[in-house]
Amino acid sequence: MNLQRVLLVISIILLGNSCDNMKPKAFNSNEMIIRISEIGIDSIYLNEYIRILKDESESSVRLEPGVISIYPMFQKENPTEIRILEIYANKEAYESHLQTPHFKIYKTSTLKMVKSLKLMDMKAIDGNTMDKIFKKLDQL
Amino acid sequence: MNLQRVLLVISIILLGNSCDNMKPKAFNSNEMIIRISEIGIDSIYLNEYIRILKDESESSVRLEPGVISIYPMFQKENPTEIRILEIYANKEAYESHLQTPHFKIYKTSTLKMVKSLKLMDMKAIDGNTMDKIFKKLDQL
Repeated sequence: MNLQRVLLVISIILLGNSCDNMKPKAFNSNEMIIRISEIGIDSIYLNEYIRILKDESESSVRLEPGVISIYPMFQKENPTEIRILEIYANKEAYESHLQTPHFKIYKTSTLKMVKSLKLMDMKAIDGNTMDKIFKKLDQL
Repeated sequence: MNLQRVLLVISIILLGNSCDNMKPKAFNSNEMIIRISEIGIDSIYLNEYIRILKDESESSVRLEPGVISIYPMFQKENPTEIRILEIYANKEAYESHLQTPHFKIYKTSTLKMVKSLKLMDMKAIDGNTMDKIFKKLDQL
């Protein structure tokens, strides 16, 4: 095998691996903390609350490896009714999230805006196919 | 440039493209239909209902390009209380979903099991960063 053939083989192996590396390490779906937060906001603060929540959820997903989802929504018919689907890799990831500056800023600055708060702990019905669900969001 | 150099260059280009191709075409987040379904199940049917819902959501995500998420959960403290986060690419994708055999089987076979049903239309607070949210589920 001459040098160019060796280079060709090495390039193929390296490029193949670089694709594989886009898939990071596995989480255990049984350890995940899944929650739907139901939050009622005082309408006079709604725009300000949305801005702070948007910052907080964006920072959490971007900066914290163990935050799988903080997906905030509002009810179309009643925009002061916020719902957030939160998925943390495990208990440690959740506890670490509570200590982050972005979460602390969110919590203290929105305290006066929140009229009602209900945290519902959930369990996923199909942990095995979770990897396929939401995958199409990558297409955005 | 000899044949082997040409082959090397072609291999690199093709492998580079095969990584890019993992990113499919974009959806428009403004067109998405997002819903939280709140479903109360008669406890005597719970196991059967869960089995049917699991089949239906798995089939929908696998077979329908426009079904971005059908993510079923139950409340830990009250397992007969089901919540499903549904995300469809657009109105057409949602209407097409209603016509699929797997949805029709789910709907007719679970009718007697459902004690309460509330469909809440939602809007995502941060459409722009949706592509980052849930991405880590790929790591499962």
